Amino acid sequence: MAETQVRIKWQSLKAFMKELFLRLGMSPEDAEIEAEVLIWANLRGVDSHGALLLPWYVDNLTTGVMNPKPDIKIEKETPATILIEADRSLGAPVTVFAMKRVMEKAKKVGVGWGIIRNVTHQGAIGYYSLMAAQAGMAGLTFTCNPPNMAPYGAKAPGVHNSPIAISVPAKRHRALLLDMATSVVAAGKISLAVDKKVPIPQGWALDKDGNPTTDPRQAVILLPFGGAKGSGLAMMFECLSGVMSGNPLLSPSLLGTDAAAAKPSEPKPRPGHASRHIQNSVVAAINIGTFTDVESYKEHIDNLIDGIKALPKAEGVSEIFVPGEPEWRTYDERSKNGIPLPDGTVQNLRRVADRVKINLPEGL
Amino acid sequence: MAETQVRIKWQSLKAFMKELFLRLGMSPEDAEIEAEVLIWANLRGVDSHGALLLPWYVDNLTTGVMNPKPDIKIEKETPATILIEADRSLGAPVTVFAMKRVMEKAKKVGVGWGIIRNVTHQGAIGYYSLMAAQAGMAGLTFTCNPPNMAPYGAKAPGVHNSPIAISVPAKRHRALLLDMATSVVAAGKISLAVDKKVPIPQGWALDKDGNPTTDPRQAVILLPFGGAKGSGLAMMFECLSGVMSGNPLLSPSLLGTDAAAAKPSEPKPRPGHASRHIQNSVVAAINIGTFTDVESYKEHIDNLIDGIKALPKAEGVSEIFVPGEPEWRTYDERSKNGIPLPDGTVQNLRRVADRVKINLPEGL
Repeated sequence: MAETQVRIKWQSLKAFMKELFLRLGMSPEDAEIEAEVLIWANLRGVDSHGALLLPWYVDNLTTGVMNPKPDIKIEKETPATILIEADRSLGAPVTVFAMKRVMEKAKKVGVGWGIIRNVTHQGAIGYYSLMAAQAGMAGLTFTCNPPNMAPYGAKAPGVHNSPIAISVPAKRHRALLLDMATSVVAAGKISLAVDKKVPIPQGWALDKDGNPTTDPRQAVILLPFGGAKGSGLAMMFECLSGVMSGNPLLSPSLLGTDAAAAKPSEPKPRPGHASRHIQNSVVAAINIGTFTDVESYKEHIDNLIDGIKALPKAEGVSEIFVPGEPEWRTYDERSKNGIPLPDGTVQNLRRVADRVKINLPEGL
Repeated sequence: MAETQVRIKWQSLKAFMKELFLRLGMSPEDAEIEAEVLIWANLRGVDSHGALLLPWYVDNLTTGVMNPKPDIKIEKETPATILIEADRSLGAPVTVFAMKRVMEKAKKVGVGWGIIRNVTHQGAIGYYSLMAAQAGMAGLTFTCNPPNMAPYGAKAPGVHNSPIAISVPAKRHRALLLDMATSVVAAGKISLAVDKKVPIPQGWALDKDGNPTTDPRQAVILLPFGGAKGSGLAMMFECLSGVMSGNPLLSPSLLGTDAAAAKPSEPKPRPGHASRHIQNSVVAAINIGTFTDVESYKEHIDNLIDGIKALPKAEGVSEIFVPGEPEWRTYDERSKNGIPLPDGTVQNLRRVADRVKINLPEGL
């Protein structure tokens, strides 16, 4: 099944995204940041967190599930910590704000640790951790949503496949950027198998009754990576984000006390979820200069990268990659040659352009 | 192969450990803490980190690889961070000290983040994270040593199977305590297979030439859990501990600039390691009260535990456990009935007692 793909300049696609968010009521500053985080995902090849999301964002922003004009409040603050109520903001503006604040704290007292409560989709969270690395710090971001993954030993959802992103700066090399979910695979890979009409491997997911399945259309419950380990990490991420913010998202769903079930008038929850989209998130920055010389640090990271890449390769492996490296290559290639958009995504962009009455991006 | 096992009261075994450390030159305070952390591991059933280690500790303490009288220094300090030079201390005294300091910081500014440089074996690191949970905080500990695990795509060691421990308090339930290595299995499980003369599953480890092996005697290179994910986490833990402390442990080994190779007079490095035992470690505490009400927090954690445990079980599973729960059960059972010691461990205890001229524990 050959698929038509057009290439579109990132500047043109980003301008389209920004215009869309403006029409949906976001401020120019917020629309700019949201478009920036989405286009960054597309540039890095993480297309599941890029333009693909626009129709879903439009649905959520027009029904009020995502709030285009949130009343973002700093609820609690100490020299090293901050608790931010996001008022159902789209993720990028509030998370960029939060990361800037924890970086200021790290500059002053060595580390900054923030929790964002009641935020919606944050896009590719690696973006926020990278902000810290680009400022010569270490950055850490993780999130938790309502259950979509079976804890180890269970056959029903109980934890979320919470992602974590950690980034540190290098000197000759690009920043290291680990950005991973705690499931065997991200939900996007299952959607891709649906689109491609191919089965998924055993061990990726369960069907709605908790039975193992290789049919991607039946696969609605994710499985944790590394069994008890991925499951345990996911559970602890909720303890450090949702529960710590006073807004737990797993236990209300587990105990049937969830007041946030999606209303019939709202967009259908995503597979595996019962409630409207919601998440809590931790963002943290560690000031490297508090501990060691930043330039030496970056050189050591270069050495580490060089050393890992020079190791003898396992059979069938043509190159050893460090965290974030494959995505940096895609970033460079797409920055130059444009972002390839599958036919389905182009159709969706046409639909949203028509719906909110804006021009299609140049080149479409 | 039926193995004789005696049960010994934990108080008696702990007193023996303390006496041993005193004879090896540690201060009474340090000997007490070291014995406490070791006996804690035995009580929890983590026998690989308990009395089993004593002969190895004796070898390292008598050759100066581990320093019984370290000159522990606070090298750098800010309101939220601390860098501690451990001077090759045994792990427990300096890590307990570090965790107390970061908890004080968390009490004052919301979070405390410490790095311990140049420490030796820290035992079961869950102990330190649990200290924070017992004080109504969240605790985080992770470490990195020289390479013993193949990064994803490589067939030679490049990262360490760095463990991480996260703990948070509950109310009716025991504290949640995730304590896991970033390898598929801890090295101890491979040693156990050697002892039992049984093969190990494919995917646990490689032989010295980087070939997959099921022979535990050939298995010297660990493999990361979850492929690129466990491998990436392990690499980032070095970036946040060793490299951040100015004492990188992976890159010198990878680039052949490691000045710490074990001398012939020193104890043989452990399988997969080229250098004498050394590690760096992060300990952090997050003050829950900075973000939310601590009592409500603990109740939410109880709810989360109840909810997870009540989920429908996967086939063949008799009970769903939350992180740390199986070990708490063992802890209660062994606190009451004593610690079972395999015959091999008893022989080793006799040998070290004879060597340092102390009495065997009561009951042996």
